[in-house]
Parts: sequence; C-alpha cells; structure tokens
Amino acid sequence: MRIPKTHPRYESLVRRETLARAWKDGIVVPEGLIAHGRGEAFDYLFGEETSAPALVAEKAAAAALLRASRPVISVNGNVAALAALDVPATIEVNLFHRTEERVRKIVQVLDRAGTVRVLGRRPDARIPGLDSRRALCHREGIYKADVVLVPLEDGDRAEALVAMGKTVISVDLNPMSRTSRRASIPVVDDVTRALRNIERFARELRGDPEETSRILNAYRRVGNLRAAHSVLAWRLERFSKRRGARRRKRGARKRA
Amino acid sequence: MRIPKTHPRYESLVRRETLARAWKDGIVVPEGLIAHGRGEAFDYLFGEETSAPALVAEKAAAAALLRASRPVISVNGNVAALAALDVPATIEVNLFHRTEERVRKIVQVLDRAGTVRVLGRRPDARIPGLDSRRALCHREGIYKADVVLVPLEDGDRAEALVAMGKTVISVDLNPMSRTSRRASIPVVDDVTRALRNIERFARELRGDPEETSRILNAYRRVGNLRAAHSVLAWRLERFSKRRGARRRKRGARKRA
Repeated sequence: MRIPKTHPRYESLVRRETLARAWKDGIVVPEGLIAHGRGEAFDYLFGEETSAPALVAEKAAAAALLRASRPVISVNGNVAALAALDVPATIEVNLFHRTEERVRKIVQVLDRAGTVRVLGRRPDARIPGLDSRRALCHREGIYKADVVLVPLEDGDRAEALVAMGKTVISVDLNPMSRTSRRASIPVVDDVTRALRNIERFARELRGDPEETSRILNAYRRVGNLRAAHSVLAWRLERFSKRRGARRRKRGARKRA
Repeated sequence: MRIPKTHPRYESLVRRETLARAWKDGIVVPEGLIAHGRGEAFDYLFGEETSAPALVAEKAAAAALLRASRPVISVNGNVAALAALDVPATIEVNLFHRTEERVRKIVQVLDRAGTVRVLGRRPDARIPGLDSRRALCHREGIYKADVVLVPLEDGDRAEALVAMGKTVISVDLNPMSRTSRRASIPVVDDVTRALRNIERFARELRGDPEETSRILNAYRRVGNLRAAHSVLAWRLERFSKRRGARRRKRGARKRA
C-alpha cells in the first residue's frame, strides 16, 4: 500500500510499515510489534510531536553522552528498524527475546548502515540481578559503560543498569512506566524523533563544554518527568474539550 | 515461557502470547499486533479493568442485540484469537487486511469452536462508501443487519455502517477514536472482557423484555462516552499523585 505524503498520519503509518517489513526480515519479534502499538497510543495522546519537556530531556541526554568516557547505546530490533543511530556512542545489540540468529541479523543491518563497530554477538559479561538471556552483555560495551542510552527498554534492565551505578538514558513514550521512573534521564518521546534530536543536540554541543555543563546542571529528572505527565493530562483534557465544543456547535446548528 | 498465575499482569501477558501464536497460525497480521499494543496502553491507563461506564455500555449492547431482528457480529483476526463469541448474533468474518486464505483460516477456527454458522467466505454485497476489500460483506449478514457489533473496528467502517442506518456497537479502548465517536453504542473496554460481559448481560436479560427496554431507554451515548473519558483523566491524575506520594514518603524517610 502506497501511503500519500499528505496523509495526516504519514509518519506514523510509514513507521508501522517499516516495522512490519522488519518483522518479515526477522529483525523484529511479535512482542516488539505489540510494544510499538503501546508507544503509538501514547504518541497519539501526545499529538505525535515532541513535547517541550522531552526536548529538554533530549538535550540533557546529548550532554550526558558527550561528557561520558564510555557511552553505549543498547539496540534492540525495534530500534534498529526505526531509528538512525548517529549518536556519539558505541553500539551494542541487546535483546529481551534473544536468539543468536536475530542478534546476527541486526548486527548485519547496522553494519550495512555504516556503523563503525557493533557489539552483541559474543557477549562476555553479565548484568547482575537479571535472568540469563537478558543479562548477557559485552565487557567493552554495556558492562563497563558509564552512560547507557537504552531506547525502548524493559523496566528490569533499566533498574539493573542504574543499580550498577550507570547513568541510564531511556526513551519510552509512557511517562509512568518503570523504565521512565527508574532512568537517570528519561526521555518521553518517540524513538525516531528522540534519537534524531539527541544526535542534533550532540552536534550542536560538541566543542562547547561550558554549555554542556550548564545543561547537565540545570536538568532535573523529577521535575522534567512531572512536566511530561502534565502535558499528557493537559492533552487529554483538550481532547475532551474539543469534543465538547464540536458537540455544542452541532447543537447550535441544529437549533438554528 | 510459562507465565505464573500469580503474576500481577497475568491476563495481559496471556493475551499477548495468544496473539503471537495466532499470528504464527496466520490468523493475525502484524498490523493487528500493533493495534493490540495500542489497546494495551489504554487498558494500562484504565487499570486493566472494566470501568463503570463500560459496564453500562455493555449492558446496553446486550439489550440492543436481544432487541435486534438481525444482529450480526463482525469478527477479525484479533477478535477470533482473543474473545469467546457466545453473543446472540450471526457471526461474519470481515477483515481490514483481507486475504481469502486468512478468511478461510479464521472461519475454520470459529467452526472448530462450535459456532453455528460463520459467514465471510463468499461475500455477495458491498458496504457503500468504502474501498473495495473492506466493503465486501454478506447480504444475509452485515448488509441486512439492523444491529452490528464491530469489535476492534476501523473508524471508516464504523462510520459507513452508521450511515447505512444500522445500530453500531463498537469495542475500542480509545474513547477518543473515530470508531468510539461514531458508534451508536461505543464500548470502551478490552475485547475479551467486553464480549464476556455482553454475553453475561444477554443471558440475564433474555426473558425480561421490560428490563431490556428500560436499559435501552436509559442509555445515553454522549454522556457514557464522556464518563469513560473522565475515568481516563482521573486515572492519569491518580498515577501522578501516587508518584508524588511515594516521593514525599521517600523524602520523609531520608530526612528521618
């Protein structure tokens, strides 16, 4: 099905098609499609655009990555399918539903995309406190990282990484999820937009250590998350008011 | 993966597994998995339980089905996988992403489940105003129906059926969706719970025409939908307050 560029939900529909294709290629699992749908619902509530608090968190995330000595981005099937990975970090493929075959395929896709070096195929370390498969990681990647960007992550793993003393940047459209609540810098935004913005901010901040410090010092996770929450509540209220307004208009027309 | 019955999200996880299996069997399409995820997000906001307004709508739906002369339930892949179809209505398989192969498979599954007669394989009519595939239906089914239960439907089709003068009962967890806004009786609930409740209410109301009339007369769609919306806004607010309370508690502990 060709989606016309003028369609009001063009980007959302293209993402849906991309995922369905990635699922056919063995990159994405059924659970990943369901998880994407959960994100879609929240994105719908957010009006399918980056909120002001998300933008603030994305700038803080970029600053944290620039300031890190060992920044790593943890990539799963959905992230590999949906986002460009131009952020300043080592890439490690890490799957909730891990099979070696799927890791191999995802590494291949990323290699083709020109990424310098992709970890994931021969894990040699474990994240403490997680069950076997999800714990697997690379000593030179996630294990020793000081800042880990975990887009579309599960709450357990985000929590385990925080417990290891790492700065965890999450990307999750649900501001109430355990991932968002546990992360050091929770980004409440769509993963495609979030990584695009983080990359852009990292480019802008590179070579400006003063501004980078200022941003890191000014960022407040609790306040930022609360703001994301307020945007959601406000949008929900607007939805209902708009409906009310339309109803009143229709009523007025009928009475006229 | 065995899910323990004691898991707080047991039902939700079982549904997710059921869908993944149905997808492997060719019953459910990738788009159906994404749609299920959207529902999951709303169900999460609703606390994964049937709200009071949903229960009212489900009772009205049962009354409308009992009162109908030609009630039909329109079944797609997700519905066939997730819900028991014991509602008092003719069953017609009707797919957004229609392939004859998938229709055949779903009819087979429903036949095995002991359903009396399942329409869908040889459509001989069209719903006006819809593009080719989605318009296909049965003269003796949806086309001539006076009441149509359309769980997990697309907005276009719900709208087209209303335009044909039918009473349309929708089941959709998003109270703001076009389907919910267009349906005659929008049920804002999970499809498994909704069909279970409608079946139970139909059983209770059968043989009580007075109570059935009373329920149909008392039902107000706009007010009911607004109530569903309020529940959502209230739950969202509670989420944020609970977080605040926990924070304050932690703060108090720290200070002590």
